[in-house]
Amino acid sequence: MTDIAVTLADKRGTLPTDDKLGFGKIFTDHMFVMDYASDKGWHDARIIPYGDFNISPAAMVLHYGQAIFEGMKAFRTEDNRVVMYRPVDHLNRFNNSADILSIPQMDVDVVHTALKKLIELDKHWVPKALGTSLYIRPFVISVDPYVGVKVASQYTLFIILSPVGAYYASGFKPVKIKVEDHYVRAVKGGLGEAKTAANYAASLKAGEVAKKDGYTQVLWLDALEQKYIEEVGTMNIFFKIDDEIITPELNGSILNGMTRRSVLAVAKDWGMKATERRISIEEVYEAHANGHLQEVFGSGTAAVISPVGELCWKGKKISINNGAIGETSHKLFDYITSLQQGRVADKFGWVEEVTKL
Amino acid sequence: MTDIAVTLADKRGTLPTDDKLGFGKIFTDHMFVMDYASDKGWHDARIIPYGDFNISPAAMVLHYGQAIFEGMKAFRTEDNRVVMYRPVDHLNRFNNSADILSIPQMDVDVVHTALKKLIELDKHWVPKALGTSLYIRPFVISVDPYVGVKVASQYTLFIILSPVGAYYASGFKPVKIKVEDHYVRAVKGGLGEAKTAANYAASLKAGEVAKKDGYTQVLWLDALEQKYIEEVGTMNIFFKIDDEIITPELNGSILNGMTRRSVLAVAKDWGMKATERRISIEEVYEAHANGHLQEVFGSGTAAVISPVGELCWKGKKISINNGAIGETSHKLFDYITSLQQGRVADKFGWVEEVTKL
Repeated sequence: MTDIAVTLADKRGTLPTDDKLGFGKIFTDHMFVMDYASDKGWHDARIIPYGDFNISPAAMVLHYGQAIFEGMKAFRTEDNRVVMYRPVDHLNRFNNSADILSIPQMDVDVVHTALKKLIELDKHWVPKALGTSLYIRPFVISVDPYVGVKVASQYTLFIILSPVGAYYASGFKPVKIKVEDHYVRAVKGGLGEAKTAANYAASLKAGEVAKKDGYTQVLWLDALEQKYIEEVGTMNIFFKIDDEIITPELNGSILNGMTRRSVLAVAKDWGMKATERRISIEEVYEAHANGHLQEVFGSGTAAVISPVGELCWKGKKISINNGAIGETSHKLFDYITSLQQGRVADKFGWVEEVTKL
Repeated sequence: MTDIAVTLADKRGTLPTDDKLGFGKIFTDHMFVMDYASDKGWHDARIIPYGDFNISPAAMVLHYGQAIFEGMKAFRTEDNRVVMYRPVDHLNRFNNSADILSIPQMDVDVVHTALKKLIELDKHWVPKALGTSLYIRPFVISVDPYVGVKVASQYTLFIILSPVGAYYASGFKPVKIKVEDHYVRAVKGGLGEAKTAANYAASLKAGEVAKKDGYTQVLWLDALEQKYIEEVGTMNIFFKIDDEIITPELNGSILNGMTRRSVLAVAKDWGMKATERRISIEEVYEAHANGHLQEVFGSGTAAVISPVGELCWKGKKISINNGAIGETSHKLFDYITSLQQGRVADKFGWVEEVTKL
């Protein structure tokens, strides 16, 4: 077991009130850092005060984007335990992203242990109100000071923590999504399955255009034919048609979402038909025209479940479930958030206790 | 005109001997830095000593890759002038990349002036030997300390300078290139035309596999059919077939290379037929089989012209011009490098004098 050196912050911060939290703007007192060098492997695991760090202007990540991240959450339960949701699954996916980006594999046990130690230290930063959580952002960047294109030989891994407010601060509400028919996010043979900077960079322009038109995010179609549905900017997507829930199959160009996996498992456990398969945007529009499209919802760590009330494809708008939240969307949201916050029994083994307050 | 504040380095470094230069590892005494904030625009243009800088671990570029760069060169002529090659064309392309990545436009005049001032200050770092140069790396990164996906509101622009050795230190030699039939770099509707981190991140895995097999780089095919030729990892590509030089047309997924533009203009000036059009890998292999493929070469700022001696596509190897450098490749290399270093008259207006030594 790697030793983790701890340097405590001189003074501890205070968790803001729930209404001041927002998303991803406030960080806790400490962060975990670990370095990699090709001759040493991963080394110098340490917890240090959260803050700016020094980087070379030639650091490879700034030029060539060799970087990966994860997004996961810890919660404070009603009985004041701090729990994490599927941490080892997230860290295994982190290693999968590393593989796609030619970044050296990490020891999941070491990072898992470090994460628990970090959260223990900063546990007073985990907010309590319903819907709030501690967002956990592990990431790895390439830091060789070298402006040539190659796989780096030096990396730094960070874990930073951010208390976040309820995603639906003004109530659980459906969003409007634009089906993107011009820009492309990822393609088979590319980086689409990795949680890596490149995929998000590729989404900015389309997202901006969609926002100007009043849409929250875009729904990406496949790069080859712009016909088959892939995913939403920061979520996977589900359709409920004739009481079956359908989500695009993993094809190498979409993210293997953790909430996606949870939704599939929970729906099956409930006895619903839950299918991963190729689905075209035409099929969705036809199902709507024929009265078979019951619900559309996104799944992701930030929102958990995000009901979609309107789709717009090539200017043609359809209203889903008359713009109201569907029954399954609501049930999944309630169940998964209850599971995550310890309000229902964890029959799946997804919730891990870290500490008590 | 924006004022540029100058803070001089306490002590000046020494240009290493030519054999110690390599590529992108050594940097000069100073760098140019300028900040952007959505309420202030680009501001605080300054030249400061080259060195590490502080960044937040939450800085958006580390997570979402909103970043662009340029690569250009300055040279020392035989009569001890320092000249830049097509600086304004490079800075206009920089702004085009900015547009694709939703990064605010820069004032080309300001950046151009800053670049000249920076080179003037560090002019003793421009190496003199044939083939050496001062590599210029302007880049912009998004720096908002915010871990949510959005277009950033704060950016930093840097220009760093690196004296580089002759690309062909051991002689001008053909390279072996693998035609990539599995991985994909970029797709229409994506970021392929931008000089942005994402495109290089997408190239790492394929490049690594190719290197293990003894190839220098990969030649990318189109993402849709893996049929039409796009570009090489860090170069555009040209084929000489029946005395005509052919390069893939700009289609949104390949880089609008500066050396590519120079090659097209020079070849036309020489009375050669120089064509930009869609060209498939089958066509290249057929031309080879029929004895019509005379030369293959890459074009890019680092190598200028890189003759290709072997292609390998799906395990099928072809030797180009019997692995020897072709006549046109050689002539283009000699002419463009002579132009860049002031040894032939600049009839195109591409060379700009910065200062004298």
